[in-house]
Amino acid sequence: MRVPASSLRWLRRQAAATRSFAVLTRESINPRVLQAEYAVRGPLVLRSLEYTKRLANGDKSLPFDKVIPCNIGNPHILKQQPIEFHRQVLALVNVPGLVDAPEAQALFQPDAIARAKFYLKNIPGGTGAYGHSKGVEAVRQEVAAFLERRDGYSADPEDIYLTDGASPAVQNSLMALIRNEDDAILAPIPQYPLYSAAIAINGGTLVGYYLDESKGWAMTVTELARAVKEARANGKTVRALAVINPGNPTGQCLTVENQQDIIKFCQKEDIVLLADEVYQENVYAKGKSFVSFRKVLKDMGEAYNDVELISFHSVSKGFTGECGRRGGYMELVNISDCAKEQFYKMMSVNLCSNIEGQLMVGMMTNPPKEGDASYARYCEQRDTILGSLKRRAIKLVNAFNQLEGVTCNETEGAMYTFAQVRLPPKAVEAAKKKGMAPDAFYCMEMLDKTGIVVVPGSGFGQEEGTWHFRSTILPPEDAVDEVIEKTVKFHAAFMDEYR
Amino acid sequence: MRVPASSLRWLRRQAAATRSFAVLTRESINPRVLQAEYAVRGPLVLRSLEYTKRLANGDKSLPFDKVIPCNIGNPHILKQQPIEFHRQVLALVNVPGLVDAPEAQALFQPDAIARAKFYLKNIPGGTGAYGHSKGVEAVRQEVAAFLERRDGYSADPEDIYLTDGASPAVQNSLMALIRNEDDAILAPIPQYPLYSAAIAINGGTLVGYYLDESKGWAMTVTELARAVKEARANGKTVRALAVINPGNPTGQCLTVENQQDIIKFCQKEDIVLLADEVYQENVYAKGKSFVSFRKVLKDMGEAYNDVELISFHSVSKGFTGECGRRGGYMELVNISDCAKEQFYKMMSVNLCSNIEGQLMVGMMTNPPKEGDASYARYCEQRDTILGSLKRRAIKLVNAFNQLEGVTCNETEGAMYTFAQVRLPPKAVEAAKKKGMAPDAFYCMEMLDKTGIVVVPGSGFGQEEGTWHFRSTILPPEDAVDEVIEKTVKFHAAFMDEYR
Repeated sequence: MRVPASSLRWLRRQAAATRSFAVLTRESINPRVLQAEYAVRGPLVLRSLEYTKRLANGDKSLPFDKVIPCNIGNPHILKQQPIEFHRQVLALVNVPGLVDAPEAQALFQPDAIARAKFYLKNIPGGTGAYGHSKGVEAVRQEVAAFLERRDGYSADPEDIYLTDGASPAVQNSLMALIRNEDDAILAPIPQYPLYSAAIAINGGTLVGYYLDESKGWAMTVTELARAVKEARANGKTVRALAVINPGNPTGQCLTVENQQDIIKFCQKEDIVLLADEVYQENVYAKGKSFVSFRKVLKDMGEAYNDVELISFHSVSKGFTGECGRRGGYMELVNISDCAKEQFYKMMSVNLCSNIEGQLMVGMMTNPPKEGDASYARYCEQRDTILGSLKRRAIKLVNAFNQLEGVTCNETEGAMYTFAQVRLPPKAVEAAKKKGMAPDAFYCMEMLDKTGIVVVPGSGFGQEEGTWHFRSTILPPEDAVDEVIEKTVKFHAAFMDEYR
Repeated sequence: MRVPASSLRWLRRQAAATRSFAVLTRESINPRVLQAEYAVRGPLVLRSLEYTKRLANGDKSLPFDKVIPCNIGNPHILKQQPIEFHRQVLALVNVPGLVDAPEAQALFQPDAIARAKFYLKNIPGGTGAYGHSKGVEAVRQEVAAFLERRDGYSADPEDIYLTDGASPAVQNSLMALIRNEDDAILAPIPQYPLYSAAIAINGGTLVGYYLDESKGWAMTVTELARAVKEARANGKTVRALAVINPGNPTGQCLTVENQQDIIKFCQKEDIVLLADEVYQENVYAKGKSFVSFRKVLKDMGEAYNDVELISFHSVSKGFTGECGRRGGYMELVNISDCAKEQFYKMMSVNLCSNIEGQLMVGMMTNPPKEGDASYARYCEQRDTILGSLKRRAIKLVNAFNQLEGVTCNETEGAMYTFAQVRLPPKAVEAAKKKGMAPDAFYCMEMLDKTGIVVVPGSGFGQEEGTWHFRSTILPPEDAVDEVIEKTVKFHAAFMDEYR
């Protein structure tokens, strides 16, 4: 039977009315996008936003009077103050003529005015013009000088790419690396879910290597070798190893010996090292310090100058905490010229990263110096923030270790505690009934009862049969006590209900 | 013969020293990245940057004393001034306490101070905190109000996603649409190469539809139908149609009838309409005006509310020209809830777009109003910029039409002229010898002789056997005369040499 075209169209129209012909549906959208997961901003966060709105609208029915977002490393939202020098410079570069206005002399420090003049002279077209796709050259020079001071080895501004935060830099790197699903990227378990999400979106395979919780989240080459062997047995080509140091969500800081072993491993196995070093300023543990993979690699001498390294940094963390600015950079070390060109091209498709984010990178890597008008205040702000973060980390870890069935490794660095919580079978059962992971259930209950937002371990990956939650160490010091008090009370009640 | 493991390792090390085991090489990098092309920032631009450096260093050997970048719509680099109100607000939101400082009253307009206070009240944590992944709600409300004023139909702030310029929004959309190489996207020829580059990177297929140069770059449904038919005959699934209106690089403005036909076509063929409307403020031709696809679609009534539309806008164009800010938005119209969730997730992997770019979107869509202190100055700046752009467009088009073998359609809108240049066979031969497209050769010669940077038509796509170049209309009015004079002289000499 032939159906006339007009009837066919009518049928199509009818079908379209029920959306069955729509293109962007669950069935028809790119499945790689569908599969990607990003728990740091998942359903828990959406519910917490709902609660925030209800509270703002005067809703008194909730068992708490405020939402405390401990789900994300977002310091300014929890009252951390911006570094004043950096912000003064941003204001000055944005208003034409402001650097020379007499009234400005009373509002801004002379070194901020001088820096703003320097940037205005060195940014063709100012903050409103597209810049070089790799970023403003003057800022890349500031970054290069910083790398030389930090590591003792000079850096080439041409190998530095300024980006809208570290996240797009990681994503571009994974895009360059992943050709198809047979390409594997080694990522830690637990890991910051940017990696799992970006690997999924790019259609590659994540191969997890486990950090050893019983040894302070240690990273071992034995475990890396196991992961590579398994991946290869499954027909995968291992292309890169992602290392987060200091760790997110786990907070551990690697030793130099460990880093050397990792570099040797990358050389032996011909894989690119992706060094996520965005928490390099955030080290709190006694006897620990941050050493960049770049420095360790260069210290190992010429024999290792075939190890391909991409390192990432950001203005969002450290004591700067300028998350909303979206500023960061990556440095390409021992990467072929052809690949560098490809990175340039990928970035040029987006034209450039935002200029103020770039300037923030410049100020982070080239802050006020001794003798500058802003220096004392800069040091005071830096030391206050880092000192307070350290106290809060210790306080929270200690408190979590007091909870029934909970153990929590020391936060050596970064901005998080990652506690293991041993949930009673009845709680696991209750979670199953709701179709939730047991730790997601625990965290959702915590939110519902206390207004505290933490992220379940299942969002980061964890050893089968263990459950965790990640909390930032960012609530202001007075609020930390409140977080602890509420968590203790919630946890006790939860255990009583499900024990 | 078995080779001992230690020798194998030695061989590997030797090989690695010559990089044959490196991962990120031409042979081994993701081929989709390698294939992507983005001419707006290609080798021509790199050479022009070299020239700029040489001139800055006092090099007198070049036949010109400055580089004039007509390759990219980057108004501020060519002395277009930023809208003062917008910049004042940016300065005020960045320095804590500045809105209340007595000295600030002399430096900033009261409506700028009021707007800054509004933003500070409505951005939790200020400009330094991550915001909602879809963007600050208060700004999305400003955009929604703008859409309602512009189109006469209310908009839901929840359907508006603030992005780092329009480019990442287009890329996210293509990422959601393209599942594999059998998925095709219709894009105009000539087209802005963001589309070809992003389609290549996402592994899809670009199916070109030709704009009719002989009819002022008209877009016809007949040609769309031809392209779809051909794509389907090749086994492709056509997923979306990208329309740039006003056109880039071609400058044409669609009529409402044309837009209606396009919408009907999308409905009939079940394809998503991607409306790139970043030049909506840039319409110069008599009798032409911008009407959004959103308005046309809604005017067509309920029978068309199954047509999936994603529209894009940006602060980089119009008369704002804030390219370096990286601010833009997309609106999802008639898109399923599931797909909206997926867009939210894709954006949340990058946490959020930069907050100041978002605020710039807010100010672009909610500028000073009659009665506000900044209103008169705002109108003056707007009218000066748009009036001047119009004069420059006319001047350049007229001049190009005087050149031997060159024809150039009217720039009805956007920021470009796109002239066809009929190159003599000897020039085509000379280009071939250098391994260049003939128009790339012509543009490189123009750069070498005049310092003027334009982009060859081959970077945008063009009908086989025709050659073009795109020039922006952005040089300041006095420089336009210089551009014309130099181009006339260069073109005559070029034709003399190769005729």
